[in-house]
Amino acid sequence: MKAESTAWDDTSLKTIGIIAGNGTLPVRFAREAKKNGCKVYAVCHYKETDPALEEFVDDLQWVKIGELNKLINFLKSKKVSQAVMLGGVNRIRLFGIKPDLRGLSLIYRTRSAKDDVLMRAIADELNGEGIEIISSVIFLQESLVEERLLTKSKVSESEMDDIEVGANALKAIGSQDIGQLVVVKDGVIVAVEAIEGTDRAILRGGELGGPGTVVVKFAKPTQDMRFDVPTIGVTTIENMIKVKARVLALEAGRCILLDEDQVVKLANKHKIAIIGCPPLA
Amino acid sequence: MKAESTAWDDTSLKTIGIIAGNGTLPVRFAREAKKNGCKVYAVCHYKETDPALEEFVDDLQWVKIGELNKLINFLKSKKVSQAVMLGGVNRIRLFGIKPDLRGLSLIYRTRSAKDDVLMRAIADELNGEGIEIISSVIFLQESLVEERLLTKSKVSESEMDDIEVGANALKAIGSQDIGQLVVVKDGVIVAVEAIEGTDRAILRGGELGGPGTVVVKFAKPTQDMRFDVPTIGVTTIENMIKVKARVLALEAGRCILLDEDQVVKLANKHKIAIIGCPPLA
Repeated sequence: MKAESTAWDDTSLKTIGIIAGNGTLPVRFAREAKKNGCKVYAVCHYKETDPALEEFVDDLQWVKIGELNKLINFLKSKKVSQAVMLGGVNRIRLFGIKPDLRGLSLIYRTRSAKDDVLMRAIADELNGEGIEIISSVIFLQESLVEERLLTKSKVSESEMDDIEVGANALKAIGSQDIGQLVVVKDGVIVAVEAIEGTDRAILRGGELGGPGTVVVKFAKPTQDMRFDVPTIGVTTIENMIKVKARVLALEAGRCILLDEDQVVKLANKHKIAIIGCPPLA
Repeated sequence: MKAESTAWDDTSLKTIGIIAGNGTLPVRFAREAKKNGCKVYAVCHYKETDPALEEFVDDLQWVKIGELNKLINFLKSKKVSQAVMLGGVNRIRLFGIKPDLRGLSLIYRTRSAKDDVLMRAIADELNGEGIEIISSVIFLQESLVEERLLTKSKVSESEMDDIEVGANALKAIGSQDIGQLVVVKDGVIVAVEAIEGTDRAILRGGELGGPGTVVVKFAKPTQDMRFDVPTIGVTTIENMIKVKARVLALEAGRCILLDEDQVVKLANKHKIAIIGCPPLA
Protein backbone atom coordinates (compact mmCIF):
# COMPACT_ATOMS: atom_id res chain seq x y z
CA MET A 1 0.00 0.00 0.00
CA LYS A 2 2.93 2.29 0.70
CA ALA A 3 3.71 2.81 -2.98
CA GLU A 4 0.24 4.24 -3.62
CA SER A 5 0.40 6.69 -0.75
CA THR A 6 3.69 7.94 -2.12
CA ALA A 7 2.20 8.29 -5.57
CA TRP A 8 -0.46 10.51 -4.09
CA ASP A 9 1.94 12.52 -1.93
CA ASP A 10 3.91 13.10 -5.11
CA THR A 11 2.71 16.50 -6.29
CA SER A 12 3.07 15.37 -9.91
CA LEU A 13 -0.34 13.67 -9.62
CA LYS A 14 -2.33 16.70 -10.77
CA THR A 15 -4.59 14.92 -13.24
CA ILE A 16 -6.29 11.57 -12.76
CA GLY A 17 -8.56 9.49 -14.96
CA ILE A 18 -11.33 7.26 -13.65
CA ILE A 19 -12.57 4.31 -15.64
CA ALA A 20 -15.84 4.03 -13.81
CA GLY A 21 -18.04 1.01 -13.25
CA ASN A 22 -21.08 0.84 -10.98
CA GLY A 23 -21.52 1.46 -7.27
CA THR A 24 -20.43 4.38 -5.14
CA LEU A 25 -16.65 3.94 -5.43
CA PRO A 26 -16.14 6.22 -8.48
CA VAL A 27 -18.04 9.08 -6.81
CA ARG A 28 -16.19 8.65 -3.52
CA PHE A 29 -12.86 8.58 -5.30
CA ALA A 30 -13.63 11.62 -7.47
CA ARG A 31 -14.72 13.63 -4.43
CA GLU A 32 -11.47 12.84 -2.60
CA ALA A 33 -9.38 13.59 -5.65
CA LYS A 34 -11.06 16.97 -6.19
CA LYS A 35 -10.63 17.75 -2.50
CA ASN A 36 -6.92 17.16 -2.99
CA GLY A 37 -6.75 19.55 -5.93
CA CYS A 38 -6.69 17.01 -8.77
CA LYS A 39 -8.23 17.45 -12.17
CA VAL A 40 -10.51 14.44 -12.62
CA TYR A 41 -11.66 12.96 -15.95
CA ALA A 42 -14.02 10.01 -15.97
CA VAL A 43 -15.06 7.45 -18.55
CA CYS A 44 -18.56 6.31 -17.54
CA HIS A 45 -20.32 3.15 -18.70
CA TYR A 46 -23.98 3.30 -19.76
CA LYS A 47 -26.30 1.34 -17.43
CA GLU A 48 -23.46 0.95 -14.92
CA THR A 49 -22.03 4.22 -13.71
CA ASP A 50 -23.95 6.47 -11.34
CA PRO A 51 -24.70 9.74 -13.23
CA ALA A 52 -24.08 11.57 -9.91
CA LEU A 53 -20.41 11.30 -10.86
CA GLU A 54 -20.92 14.28 -13.19
CA GLU A 55 -20.90 16.66 -10.21
CA PHE A 56 -17.45 15.63 -9.08
CA VAL A 57 -15.42 15.55 -12.29
CA ASP A 58 -13.98 18.15 -14.63
CA ASP A 59 -15.27 16.32 -17.67
CA LEU A 60 -16.57 12.92 -18.59
CA GLN A 61 -17.36 10.68 -21.52
CA TRP A 62 -20.11 8.06 -21.63
CA VAL A 63 -19.25 4.78 -23.41
CA LYS A 64 -20.73 1.32 -23.81
CA ILE A 65 -18.80 -1.57 -22.29
CA GLY A 66 -16.14 -2.63 -24.77
CA GLU A 67 -15.83 0.73 -26.55
CA LEU A 68 -12.12 0.71 -25.86
CA ASN A 69 -11.13 3.15 -28.57
CA LYS A 70 -13.55 5.83 -27.40
CA LEU A 71 -12.32 5.32 -23.83
CA ILE A 72 -8.66 5.72 -24.77
CA ASN A 73 -9.26 8.69 -27.06
CA PHE A 74 -11.10 10.61 -24.35
CA LEU A 75 -8.38 10.05 -21.73
CA LYS A 76 -5.66 10.97 -24.24
CA SER A 77 -7.52 14.14 -25.25
CA LYS A 78 -7.44 15.16 -21.58
CA LYS A 79 -3.72 14.36 -21.29
CA VAL A 80 -4.40 11.78 -18.56
CA SER A 81 -1.27 9.76 -17.82
CA GLN A 82 -2.55 7.98 -14.69
CA ALA A 83 -5.94 6.40 -14.20
CA VAL A 84 -7.82 4.09 -11.85
CA MET A 85 -10.43 1.43 -12.57
CA LEU A 86 -13.23 1.66 -10.01
CA GLY A 87 -16.53 -0.09 -9.44
CA GLY A 88 -17.73 -3.30 -11.01
CA VAL A 89 -19.68 -4.01 -14.11
CA ASN A 90 -22.68 -6.29 -14.10
CA ARG A 91 -20.95 -9.47 -15.16
CA ILE A 92 -24.27 -11.01 -16.15
CA ARG A 93 -24.73 -8.32 -18.79
CA LEU A 94 -21.22 -8.85 -20.18
CA PHE A 95 -22.47 -11.68 -22.40
CA GLY A 96 -24.45 -9.25 -24.54
CA ILE A 97 -21.80 -6.58 -25.17
CA LYS A 98 -20.73 -5.35 -28.59
CA PRO A 99 -17.12 -4.21 -28.25
CA ASP A 100 -15.56 -1.88 -30.84
CA LEU A 101 -12.82 -3.18 -33.13
CA ARG A 102 -10.09 -2.38 -30.65
CA GLY A 103 -12.04 -4.08 -27.86
CA LEU A 104 -12.76 -7.09 -30.06
CA SER A 105 -9.14 -7.40 -31.05
CA LEU A 106 -8.11 -7.29 -27.41
CA ILE A 107 -10.60 -10.02 -26.45
CA TYR A 108 -9.45 -12.08 -29.41
CA ARG A 109 -5.78 -11.74 -28.53
CA THR A 110 -6.47 -12.45 -24.87
CA ARG A 111 -8.61 -15.49 -25.68
CA SER A 112 -10.07 -15.26 -22.23
CA ALA A 113 -13.10 -13.75 -20.62
CA LYS A 114 -11.66 -14.11 -17.14
CA ASP A 115 -11.74 -10.91 -15.14
CA ASP A 116 -8.11 -10.79 -14.21
CA VAL A 117 -6.74 -11.63 -17.62
CA LEU A 118 -9.00 -9.13 -19.39
CA MET A 119 -8.40 -6.35 -16.88
CA ARG A 120 -4.65 -6.83 -17.14
CA ALA A 121 -4.88 -6.78 -20.94
CA ILE A 122 -6.86 -3.53 -20.85
CA ALA A 123 -4.31 -2.03 -18.45
CA ASP A 124 -1.51 -3.08 -20.83
CA GLU A 125 -3.34 -1.59 -23.80
CA LEU A 126 -3.75 1.72 -21.97
CA ASN A 127 -0.14 1.63 -20.87
CA GLY A 128 0.86 1.38 -24.51
CA GLU A 129 -0.92 4.71 -24.98
CA GLY A 130 0.91 6.34 -22.11
CA ILE A 131 -1.87 5.87 -19.56
CA GLU A 132 -0.74 4.00 -16.46
CA ILE A 133 -3.38 2.21 -14.37
CA ILE A 134 -2.56 2.75 -10.71
CA SER A 135 -3.96 1.11 -7.57
CA SER A 136 -7.63 1.83 -7.09
CA VAL A 137 -7.22 2.20 -3.31
CA ILE A 138 -5.00 5.31 -3.65
CA PHE A 139 -7.64 7.54 -1.97
CA LEU A 140 -9.29 4.71 -0.05
CA GLN A 141 -6.45 3.59 2.23
CA GLU A 142 -8.54 4.43 5.28
CA SER A 143 -11.38 2.22 4.08
CA LEU A 144 -9.25 -0.92 3.95
CA VAL A 145 -10.40 -3.38 6.62
CA GLU A 146 -8.20 -3.62 9.70
CA GLU A 147 -7.25 -6.88 11.35
CA ARG A 148 -9.59 -6.80 14.34
CA LEU A 149 -13.13 -7.40 15.57
CA LEU A 150 -15.19 -4.39 14.48
CA THR A 151 -18.43 -5.11 16.29
CA LYS A 152 -19.77 -5.69 19.80
CA SER A 153 -20.88 -9.18 18.77
CA LYS A 154 -18.02 -11.63 19.00
CA VAL A 155 -17.11 -14.63 16.87
CA SER A 156 -17.44 -18.05 18.54
CA GLU A 157 -14.85 -20.79 18.25
CA SER A 158 -16.96 -22.83 15.84
CA GLU A 159 -17.62 -19.73 13.75
CA MET A 160 -13.86 -19.16 13.59
CA ASP A 161 -13.61 -22.72 12.25
CA ASP A 162 -16.21 -21.84 9.62
CA ILE A 163 -14.19 -18.77 8.63
CA GLU A 164 -11.16 -21.00 8.16
CA VAL A 165 -13.13 -23.44 6.00
CA GLY A 166 -14.38 -20.51 3.92
CA ALA A 167 -10.99 -18.84 3.57
CA ASN A 168 -9.39 -22.08 2.42
CA ALA A 169 -12.18 -22.63 -0.08
CA LEU A 170 -11.72 -19.08 -1.41
CA LYS A 171 -8.03 -19.71 -1.87
CA ALA A 172 -8.86 -22.58 -4.22
CA ILE A 173 -11.76 -20.75 -5.86
CA GLY A 174 -9.87 -17.48 -6.25
CA SER A 175 -7.00 -19.24 -7.99
CA GLN A 176 -9.53 -20.04 -10.74
CA ASP A 177 -10.80 -16.44 -10.84
CA ILE A 178 -14.32 -17.55 -9.93
CA GLY A 179 -15.48 -15.45 -7.00
CA GLN A 180 -14.48 -13.77 -3.75
CA LEU A 181 -17.24 -14.89 -1.41
CA VAL A 182 -18.57 -18.07 0.14
CA VAL A 183 -21.24 -18.75 2.75
CA VAL A 184 -20.46 -21.40 5.38
CA LYS A 185 -22.59 -23.21 7.95
CA ASP A 186 -21.28 -25.75 10.46
CA GLY A 187 -18.18 -26.46 8.40
CA VAL A 188 -20.05 -26.85 5.10
CA ILE A 189 -19.76 -24.46 2.14
CA VAL A 190 -23.43 -23.76 1.42
CA ALA A 191 -22.98 -21.22 -1.39
CA VAL A 192 -20.19 -20.09 -3.69
CA GLU A 193 -20.36 -16.75 -5.47
CA ALA A 194 -19.72 -16.82 -9.20
CA ILE A 195 -21.07 -14.06 -11.46
CA GLU A 196 -24.33 -13.48 -9.60
CA GLY A 197 -22.53 -11.18 -7.16
CA THR A 198 -22.25 -10.77 -3.42
CA ASP A 199 -25.86 -9.94 -2.63
CA ARG A 200 -27.44 -12.93 -4.33
CA ALA A 201 -24.80 -15.30 -2.97
CA ILE A 202 -25.47 -14.12 0.60
CA LEU A 203 -29.24 -14.49 0.17
CA ARG A 204 -28.91 -17.96 -1.38
CA GLY A 205 -26.45 -19.11 1.28
CA GLY A 206 -28.76 -17.89 4.01
CA GLU A 207 -31.73 -19.62 2.48
CA LEU A 208 -29.81 -22.90 2.08
CA GLY A 209 -27.99 -22.84 5.41
CA GLY A 210 -30.71 -21.27 7.54
CA PRO A 211 -30.03 -18.73 10.32
CA GLY A 212 -26.49 -18.41 11.64
CA THR A 213 -24.45 -18.58 8.45
CA VAL A 214 -20.94 -17.22 8.21
CA VAL A 215 -20.15 -15.00 5.21
CA VAL A 216 -16.49 -14.98 4.16
CA LYS A 217 -15.05 -12.49 1.69
CA PHE A 218 -11.37 -12.70 0.78
CA ALA A 219 -9.43 -11.27 -2.14
CA LYS A 220 -8.03 -13.66 -4.71
CA PRO A 221 -4.56 -15.07 -3.90
CA THR A 222 -3.35 -13.17 -6.97
CA GLN A 223 -5.46 -10.07 -6.27
CA ASP A 224 -4.18 -7.05 -8.20
CA MET A 225 -5.16 -4.00 -6.16
CA ARG A 226 -5.72 -2.09 -9.39
CA PHE A 227 -8.80 -4.18 -10.26
CA ASP A 228 -11.98 -5.32 -8.57
CA VAL A 229 -10.93 -5.01 -4.92
CA PRO A 230 -13.54 -6.81 -2.76
CA THR A 231 -15.84 -4.14 -1.35
CA ILE A 232 -18.66 -4.30 1.15
CA GLY A 233 -21.05 -1.71 2.55
CA VAL A 234 -24.44 -1.21 4.12
CA THR A 235 -26.26 -3.34 1.50
CA THR A 236 -24.16 -6.34 2.48
CA ILE A 237 -25.33 -6.09 6.08
CA GLU A 238 -28.93 -5.49 5.00
CA ASN A 239 -28.85 -8.74 3.03
CA MET A 240 -27.28 -10.58 5.95
CA ILE A 241 -30.10 -9.32 8.19
CA LYS A 242 -32.70 -10.65 5.74
CA VAL A 243 -31.37 -14.21 6.06
CA LYS A 244 -30.26 -13.97 9.71
CA ALA A 245 -26.60 -14.47 8.85
CA ARG A 246 -24.33 -14.17 11.89
CA VAL A 247 -20.75 -13.35 10.91
CA LEU A 248 -19.02 -11.36 8.18
CA ALA A 249 -15.33 -12.18 7.83
CA LEU A 250 -13.27 -9.88 5.61
CA GLU A 251 -9.66 -10.10 4.60
CA ALA A 252 -7.79 -7.32 6.35
CA GLY A 253 -5.80 -4.93 4.14
CA ARG A 254 -7.33 -6.26 0.93
CA CYS A 255 -11.07 -5.56 1.33
CA ILE A 256 -12.69 -2.13 1.27
CA LEU A 257 -15.32 -1.40 3.90
CA LEU A 258 -17.44 1.58 2.93
CA ASP A 259 -19.30 3.73 5.49
CA GLU A 260 -17.76 1.85 8.40
CA ASP A 261 -19.65 3.75 11.14
CA GLN A 262 -23.01 3.07 9.56
CA VAL A 263 -22.14 -0.55 8.77
CA VAL A 264 -20.93 -1.30 12.30
CA LYS A 265 -23.93 0.40 13.89
CA LEU A 266 -26.34 -1.65 11.80
CA ALA A 267 -24.41 -4.86 12.52
CA ASN A 268 -24.40 -4.16 16.27
CA LYS A 269 -28.14 -3.56 16.23
CA HIS A 270 -28.71 -6.98 14.65
CA LYS A 271 -26.05 -8.85 16.66
CA ILE A 272 -23.97 -9.51 13.56
CA ALA A 273 -20.21 -9.86 14.07
CA ILE A 274 -17.77 -8.33 11.58
CA ILE A 275 -14.14 -9.36 11.75
CA GLY A 276 -11.04 -8.42 9.76
CA CYS A 277 -8.90 -11.52 9.36
CA PRO A 278 -5.21 -11.83 8.49
CA PRO A 279 -4.56 -12.80 4.88
CA LEU A 280 -4.02 -16.52 4.30
CA ALA A 281 -0.43 -17.70 4.28
CA MET B 1 -13.41 -50.82 -11.24
CA LYS B 2 -12.00 -54.31 -11.72
CA ALA B 3 -12.01 -55.10 -8.02
CA GLU B 4 -15.73 -54.51 -7.75
CA SER B 5 -16.57 -56.76 -10.69
CA THR B 6 -14.56 -59.49 -9.08
CA ALA B 7 -16.32 -58.95 -5.78
CA TRP B 8 -19.59 -59.52 -7.55
CA ASP B 9 -18.40 -62.52 -9.53
CA ASP B 10 -17.28 -63.96 -6.22
CA THR B 11 -20.13 -66.24 -5.23
CA SER B 12 -19.56 -65.37 -1.57
CA LEU B 13 -21.60 -62.15 -2.14
CA LYS B 14 -24.92 -63.72 -1.26
CA THR B 15 -26.17 -60.98 1.05
CA ILE B 16 -25.88 -57.25 0.53
CA GLY B 17 -26.96 -54.24 2.56
CA ILE B 18 -28.10 -50.93 1.08
CA ILE B 19 -27.82 -47.71 3.03
CA ALA B 20 -30.32 -45.86 0.93
CA GLY B 21 -30.61 -42.15 0.26
CA ASN B 22 -32.93 -40.52 -2.25
CA GLY B 23 -33.29 -40.92 -6.02
CA THR B 24 -33.66 -44.03 -8.11
CA LEU B 25 -30.23 -45.56 -7.48
CA PRO B 26 -31.22 -47.69 -4.46
CA VAL B 27 -34.15 -49.25 -6.37
CA ARG B 28 -32.06 -49.90 -9.48
CA PHE B 29 -29.34 -51.49 -7.42
CA ALA B 30 -31.73 -53.65 -5.39
CA ARG B 31 -33.42 -54.90 -8.56
CA GLU B 32 -30.09 -55.90 -10.09
CA ALA B 33 -28.93 -57.55 -6.88
CA LYS B 34 -32.14 -59.59 -6.58
CA LYS B 35 -31.84 -60.57 -10.25
CA ASN B 36 -28.41 -61.95 -9.41
CA GLY B 37 -29.74 -64.01 -6.55
CA CYS B 38 -28.65 -61.80 -3.65
CA LYS B 39 -30.49 -61.32 -0.41
CA VAL B 40 -30.94 -57.57 -0.07
CA TYR B 41 -31.48 -55.64 3.18
CA ALA B 42 -32.00 -51.89 3.09
CA VAL B 43 -31.80 -49.11 5.63
CA CYS B 44 -34.13 -46.37 4.34
CA HIS B 45 -34.14 -42.73 5.44
CA TYR B 46 -37.43 -40.96 6.17
CA LYS B 47 -38.21 -38.15 3.71
CA GLU B 48 -35.36 -39.30 1.46
CA THR B 49 -35.70 -42.88 0.29
CA ASP B 50 -38.29 -43.88 -2.29
CA PRO B 51 -40.76 -46.28 -0.56
CA ALA B 52 -40.87 -48.24 -3.85
CA LEU B 53 -37.67 -49.86 -2.60
CA GLU B 54 -39.83 -52.11 -0.38
CA GLU B 55 -40.77 -54.23 -3.42
CA PHE B 56 -37.18 -55.13 -4.22
CA VAL B 57 -35.70 -56.03 -0.86
CA ASP B 58 -35.99 -58.93 1.54
CA ASP B 59 -36.41 -56.65 4.50
CA LEU B 60 -35.87 -53.02 5.40
CA GLN B 61 -35.68 -50.63 8.31
CA TRP B 62 -36.70 -46.96 8.25
CA VAL B 63 -34.46 -44.58 10.18
CA LYS B 64 -33.99 -40.82 10.53
CA ILE B 65 -30.74 -39.36 9.26
CA GLY B 66 -28.14 -39.76 11.99
CA GLU B 67 -29.74 -42.77 13.69
CA LEU B 68 -26.50 -44.64 13.34
CA ASN B 69 -27.13 -47.18 16.07
CA LYS B 70 -30.47 -48.27 14.61
CA LEU B 71 -28.84 -48.54 11.18
CA ILE B 72 -25.99 -50.72 12.42
CA ASN B 73 -28.21 -52.92 14.57
CA PHE B 74 -30.52 -53.69 11.67
CA LEU B 75 -27.68 -54.67 9.31
CA LYS B 76 -26.05 -56.79 12.01
CA SER B 77 -29.34 -58.54 12.78
CA LYS B 78 -29.48 -59.53 9.10
CA LYS B 79 -25.86 -60.75 9.14
CA VAL B 80 -24.89 -58.26 6.45
CA SER B 81 -21.11 -58.13 6.03
CA GLN B 82 -21.02 -56.02 2.86
CA ALA B 83 -23.09 -52.95 2.11
CA VAL B 84 -23.29 -50.05 -0.34
CA MET B 85 -24.26 -46.41 0.22
CA LEU B 86 -26.55 -45.25 -2.57
CA GLY B 87 -28.42 -42.05 -3.38
CA GLY B 88 -27.96 -38.65 -1.82
CA VAL B 89 -29.53 -36.99 1.12
CA ASN B 90 -30.93 -33.49 0.91
CA ARG B 91 -27.92 -31.62 2.17
CA ILE B 92 -30.03 -28.58 2.89
CA ARG B 93 -32.03 -30.58 5.43
CA LEU B 94 -28.89 -31.89 7.14
CA PHE B 95 -28.69 -28.77 9.30
CA GLY B 96 -31.81 -29.79 11.19
CA ILE B 97 -30.99 -33.42 11.98
CA LYS B 98 -31.03 -34.98 15.45
CA PRO B 99 -28.49 -37.80 15.40
CA ASP B 100 -28.55 -40.53 18.05
CA LEU B 101 -25.76 -40.77 20.62
CA ARG B 102 -23.62 -42.90 18.36
CA GLY B 103 -24.15 -40.51 15.45
CA LEU B 104 -23.42 -37.51 17.66
CA SER B 105 -20.25 -39.07 18.98
CA LEU B 106 -19.10 -39.77 15.42
CA ILE B 107 -19.76 -36.18 14.33
CA TYR B 108 -17.99 -34.92 17.43
CA ARG B 109 -14.95 -37.12 16.86
CA THR B 110 -14.85 -36.23 13.18
CA ARG B 111 -15.20 -32.50 13.89
CA SER B 112 -16.26 -32.02 10.32
CA ALA B 113 -19.47 -31.80 8.39
CA LYS B 114 -17.75 -32.31 5.06
CA ASP B 115 -19.28 -35.06 2.99
CA ASP B 116 -16.17 -37.06 2.38
CA VAL B 117 -14.86 -36.96 5.91
CA LEU B 118 -18.23 -37.89 7.41
CA MET B 119 -18.92 -40.66 4.90
CA ARG B 120 -15.50 -42.16 5.50
CA ALA B 121 -16.04 -41.99 9.25
CA ILE B 122 -19.39 -43.77 8.91
CA ALA B 123 -17.76 -46.41 6.72
CA ASP B 124 -15.04 -46.90 9.34
CA GLU B 125 -17.62 -47.17 12.10
CA LEU B 126 -19.50 -49.85 10.15
CA ASN B 127 -16.29 -51.63 9.38
CA GLY B 128 -15.59 -51.86 13.11
CA GLU B 129 -18.88 -53.79 13.34
CA GLY B 130 -17.89 -56.21 10.59
CA ILE B 131 -19.81 -54.43 7.81
CA GLU B 132 -17.61 -53.47 4.87
CA ILE B 133 -18.76 -50.63 2.61
CA ILE B 134 -18.03 -51.58 -0.98
CA SER B 135 -18.12 -49.54 -4.18
CA SER B 136 -21.58 -48.31 -5.00
CA VAL B 137 -21.08 -48.91 -8.72
CA ILE B 138 -20.79 -52.70 -8.27
CA PHE B 139 -24.02 -53.31 -10.24
CA LEU B 140 -23.84 -50.10 -12.22
CA GLN B 141 -20.63 -50.61 -14.22
CA GLU B 142 -22.57 -50.34 -17.46
CA SER B 143 -23.97 -46.97 -16.45
CA LEU B 144 -20.55 -45.35 -16.07
CA VAL B 145 -20.05 -42.71 -18.76
CA GLU B 146 -17.77 -43.71 -21.63
CA GLU B 147 -15.15 -41.41 -23.11
CA ARG B 148 -16.94 -40.36 -26.29
CA LEU B 149 -19.54 -38.06 -27.81
CA LEU B 150 -22.93 -39.57 -26.98
CA THR B 151 -25.19 -37.34 -29.05
CA LYS B 152 -25.73 -36.24 -32.66
CA SER B 153 -24.98 -32.66 -31.64
CA LYS B 154 -21.26 -32.01 -31.55
CA VAL B 155 -19.14 -29.85 -29.27
CA SER B 156 -17.53 -26.77 -30.87
CA GLU B 157 -13.94 -25.73 -30.30
CA SER B 158 -14.91 -22.85 -28.04
CA GLU B 159 -17.26 -25.13 -26.09
CA MET B 160 -14.34 -27.53 -25.63
CA ASP B 161 -12.42 -24.58 -24.17
CA ASP B 162 -15.33 -23.94 -21.79
CA ILE B 163 -15.25 -27.59 -20.73
CA GLU B 164 -11.56 -27.22 -19.93
CA VAL B 165 -12.20 -24.07 -17.88
CA GLY B 166 -14.94 -25.91 -16.01
CA ALA B 167 -12.93 -29.06 -15.40
CA ASN B 168 -10.00 -27.08 -14.04
CA ALA B 169 -12.32 -25.12 -11.78
CA LEU B 170 -13.86 -28.37 -10.50
CA LYS B 171 -10.42 -29.71 -9.70
CA ALA B 172 -9.86 -26.76 -7.37
CA ILE B 173 -13.42 -26.80 -6.02
CA GLY B 174 -13.52 -30.57 -5.56
CA SER B 175 -10.32 -30.49 -3.54
CA GLN B 176 -12.29 -28.43 -0.99
CA ASP B 177 -15.23 -30.89 -1.07
CA ILE B 178 -17.60 -28.14 -2.26
CA GLY B 179 -19.41 -29.44 -5.33
CA GLN B 180 -19.14 -31.47 -8.51
CA LEU B 181 -20.73 -29.16 -11.06
CA VAL B 182 -20.10 -25.77 -12.67
CA VAL B 183 -21.81 -23.88 -15.48
CA VAL B 184 -19.55 -22.08 -17.96
CA LYS B 185 -20.24 -19.48 -20.67
CA ASP B 186 -17.59 -18.02 -22.98
CA GLY B 187 -14.75 -18.95 -20.64
CA VAL B 188 -16.44 -17.59 -17.51
CA ILE B 189 -17.69 -19.72 -14.61
CA VAL B 190 -21.24 -18.44 -14.22
CA ALA B 191 -22.40 -20.79 -11.44
CA VAL B 192 -20.79 -23.12 -8.94
CA GLU B 193 -22.79 -25.87 -7.26
CA ALA B 194 -22.52 -26.03 -3.48
CA ILE B 195 -25.28 -27.69 -1.41
CA GLU B 196 -28.22 -26.57 -3.56
CA GLY B 197 -27.62 -29.51 -5.88
CA THR B 198 -27.28 -30.09 -9.62
CA ASP B 199 -30.72 -28.98 -10.73
CA ARG B 200 -30.70 -25.57 -9.10
CA ALA B 201 -27.12 -24.90 -10.17
CA ILE B 202 -27.97 -25.65 -13.81
CA LEU B 203 -31.05 -23.41 -13.70
CA ARG B 204 -29.13 -20.56 -12.04
CA GLY B 205 -26.21 -20.87 -14.44
CA GLY B 206 -28.56 -20.81 -17.41
CA GLU B 207 -30.36 -17.77 -16.09
CA LEU B 208 -27.09 -15.91 -15.46
CA GLY B 209 -25.27 -16.96 -18.60
CA GLY B 210 -28.21 -17.00 -21.00
CA PRO B 211 -28.68 -19.57 -23.77
CA GLY B 212 -25.70 -21.68 -24.79
CA THR B 213 -24.15 -22.51 -21.43
CA VAL B 214 -21.85 -25.49 -20.93
CA VAL B 215 -22.57 -27.72 -17.91
CA VAL B 216 -19.55 -29.58 -16.57
CA LYS B 217 -19.80 -32.40 -14.04
CA PHE B 218 -16.63 -34.08 -12.79
CA ALA B 219 -15.98 -36.22 -9.75
CA LYS B 220 -13.77 -34.83 -7.01
CA PRO B 221 -10.02 -35.43 -7.48
CA THR B 222 -10.22 -37.60 -4.36
CA GLN B 223 -13.56 -39.20 -5.31
CA ASP B 224 -14.18 -42.39 -3.36
CA MET B 225 -16.40 -44.56 -5.56
CA ARG B 226 -18.12 -45.85 -2.44
CA PHE B 227 -19.78 -42.47 -1.80
CA ASP B 228 -21.78 -39.90 -3.73
CA VAL B 229 -20.70 -40.78 -7.27
CA PRO B 230 -21.81 -37.95 -9.61
CA THR B 231 -25.03 -39.10 -11.27
CA ILE B 232 -27.14 -37.59 -14.00
CA GLY B 233 -30.36 -38.61 -15.69
CA VAL B 234 -33.39 -37.35 -17.57
CA THR B 235 -34.08 -34.54 -15.05
CA THR B 236 -30.67 -33.05 -15.77
CA ILE B 237 -31.49 -32.74 -19.47
CA GLU B 238 -34.96 -31.40 -18.71
CA ASN B 239 -33.41 -28.61 -16.66
CA MET B 240 -30.87 -27.89 -19.39
CA ILE B 241 -33.72 -27.57 -21.90
CA LYS B 242 -35.49 -25.05 -19.64
CA VAL B 243 -32.51 -22.67 -19.76
CA LYS B 244 -31.36 -23.54 -23.29
CA ALA B 245 -28.04 -24.96 -22.11
CA ARG B 246 -26.00 -26.44 -24.95
CA VAL B 247 -23.44 -28.96 -23.69
CA LEU B 248 -23.22 -31.49 -20.88
CA ALA B 249 -19.66 -32.67 -20.18
CA LEU B 250 -19.27 -35.64 -17.84
CA GLU B 251 -16.16 -37.26 -16.51
CA ALA B 252 -15.82 -40.67 -18.17
CA GLY B 253 -15.54 -43.66 -15.86
CA ARG B 254 -16.45 -41.67 -12.76
CA CYS B 255 -19.96 -40.38 -13.50
CA ILE B 256 -23.11 -42.50 -13.65
CA LEU B 257 -25.50 -41.84 -16.54
CA LEU B 258 -28.94 -43.30 -15.83
CA ASP B 259 -31.37 -44.26 -18.59
CA GLU B 260 -28.86 -43.50 -21.31
CA ASP B 261 -31.19 -44.21 -24.24
CA GLN B 262 -33.87 -41.90 -22.95
CA VAL B 263 -31.34 -39.20 -22.01
CA VAL B 264 -29.61 -39.26 -25.40
CA LYS B 265 -32.91 -39.23 -27.28
CA LEU B 266 -34.10 -36.18 -25.37
CA ALA B 267 -30.75 -34.42 -25.82
CA ASN B 268 -30.78 -35.10 -29.57
CA LYS B 269 -34.29 -33.72 -29.88
CA HIS B 270 -33.15 -30.44 -28.27
CA LYS B 271 -29.76 -30.25 -29.99
CA ILE B 272 -27.91 -30.68 -26.70
CA ALA B 273 -24.48 -32.31 -26.87
CA ILE B 274 -23.39 -34.82 -24.21
CA ILE B 275 -19.75 -35.79 -24.06
CA GLY B 276 -17.75 -38.14 -21.83
CA CYS B 277 -14.36 -36.54 -21.15
CA PRO B 278 -11.13 -38.15 -19.96
CA PRO B 279 -10.39 -37.55 -16.28
CA LEU B 280 -8.07 -34.62 -15.57
CA ALA B 281 -4.39 -35.45 -15.21
